[in-house]
Formats: sequence, C-alpha cells, structure tokens
Amino acid sequence: MKTWFRYNWIIREQWYEWCGEVPEEELLRRRTGGVGSILETLFHMADVEWSWIRAMQGKPDFQEKFQEYASLTKVRELDKLFRPEVEAFVNNWEERMENRAFTDTRADGTTVTDTWGEIMRHTIAHQIHHCGQLSVWARELGRKPVSPNVIGKGLMVPEAKEYK
Amino acid sequence: MKTWFRYNWIIREQWYEWCGEVPEEELLRRRTGGVGSILETLFHMADVEWSWIRAMQGKPDFQEKFQEYASLTKVRELDKLFRPEVEAFVNNWEERMENRAFTDTRADGTTVTDTWGEIMRHTIAHQIHHCGQLSVWARELGRKPVSPNVIGKGLMVPEAKEYK
Repeated sequence: MKTWFRYNWIIREQWYEWCGEVPEEELLRRRTGGVGSILETLFHMADVEWSWIRAMQGKPDFQEKFQEYASLTKVRELDKLFRPEVEAFVNNWEERMENRAFTDTRADGTTVTDTWGEIMRHTIAHQIHHCGQLSVWARELGRKPVSPNVIGKGLMVPEAKEYK
Repeated sequence: MKTWFRYNWIIREQWYEWCGEVPEEELLRRRTGGVGSILETLFHMADVEWSWIRAMQGKPDFQEKFQEYASLTKVRELDKLFRPEVEAFVNNWEERMENRAFTDTRADGTTVTDTWGEIMRHTIAHQIHHCGQLSVWARELGRKPVSPNVIGKGLMVPEAKEYK
C-alpha cells in the first residue's frame, strides 16, 4: 500500500513539473473527459486522496471549489498542506485494516459499505486513471506525457540474487 | 494483489461490453495519445499483462501484431486464451515474492533490475492508466465511459461491525 502511494506522489510531482513548462491558460483550458482541465485534475487528485483518508478517520472532507485554487502554485500548496496527514495515515497502514467496514451515504440517500482496503485501492486507482486522461491531453498539446511506469523508479529493494 | 487483478478483469470485461455498443470502425479509428485506438488499447492491456507474467516465469512473451487481432471478437478470444495462465500466477502470489529480483535488458542494451512486486504493480497500473485514456476517447464519442471505481464492486468482504 505504501509503495502505491509513494508511486502516486512521485507521478504527481512529475506532472507538476510538466505543468511548469506549459502556459497556464493551457492548464486551465476546458478539455473533453474527466474533470475538464489539466490543473483541475491535479487539484481533484489531491482533494480526493485527502478526503478519503479523512473519511476513514471520521473527519470532514474538503469542500472548497477549484476556482479558489486555479493556479499551479496554489494547487501545489494545497497538496503540500494535505500531504502530512495522508502520509501519516498511509505509513501507519496495517494488514489488519484491510477489511474494516466503511459505510457511505450516497447522494440519493442509499448506503453502500466498502472496506478500508477497497477505499485505499480506490484512491490509488483514481489518480492513475486521471493521469491516463492527462496523457491524452498532453499529446493533444504536442507534448510528451509523464511516464506512468511503476518499474525503474527504485520503489522497492530487490533481493541480491536474481530469482531463477 | 489478487484484489487488484480481479478489479482490472472486471473493468476490462465492462470495456468489452461497452465496445459491443460502438461501431467497429470507431473502435479501430486512430486517436490522439496512448497506443492509438480503443481496440488496440484493449489488446495491449491483455498482451502486456500476460507478457509480464510470462517474463517473471522466464517464458517468452507475445510477439504478434495487433493487425491480426483487429476485431472485438478476436481481442476477447485472445484475452480468454491468456487469462488462465495469468490467473494461476496471481492466485499463487505470496508476500515472499515481493522482492524477488528481475533483470530486464532494455532496447539500448543496458539492464535494469526491478522486483516482482514492482512488476505486478506496473502491470496493474498499466491497465488503469490506459482505461483513463479510453475514458477521454469515450467522451469524444459522446458516450459515457466505464466507471473506474474500485468501491462498490464487492471485491472485498467487510467486517460485520462498522469501524469507529
């Protein structure tokens, strides 16, 4: 679980760096699919990650609108603000938390029960999915997207001997 | 790890069903980003998943070209053909395999060593990323994409009592 979050944070940082090379009006331009713009997607990733971590802890989630954070600097600052709480939760993650029940009330009033393990995976997959959308928009701009590779990032330490 | 693969297989199946509602020329049309078409993306997911699982086992990977599988039926058949081997590997996955070393030789002759745990996560993230691309292309076609939600799919069994 920790490996997954570290992966996502590296990728998010690389997308922020990528954004630094792109005119801000392109980052804010409305696009087809997803939440609609590159910068709002990054804002949404940080927001959703933090909100789910908060929800599992019974804390209120983030209610502010993107309009108040519509610059690369502001999104990065918000992400930085959220990170310690998410990091603390992820670093304390243990196997025994996997099947803890979390009941959520949907907009229509019905309820659904998921496990904490599902919520953690949902949060992880959420970002990866949105990065896929960013990669299409990057190509539309004629730019190389950030590589989504998990391999080659030194996320884990291999055993000294090759497994045969 | 098993939960992740089950998630990806459910989503892939849902994309196949989604494809069944779309004219085949749209599935084959060249698009911006990723591997270039909806159907080739699904072919690529099945191919890459199987090839990595094979690679860890020291078996040769899949070398055939998409052109020979350029229909929804053929891609689904190929996926079905690959699945038992992938499923067997995933079902036998154990914690102790996480840090096994796998050394890959890149196209330029240099080598890189990753762990089996990184390769498994790479394979999982690979599909999720490409599904994000599919979701943008779906919206370009004026169609609702398959939901990437991990929650709400009954992938895990919650404990009987809500955790407070």
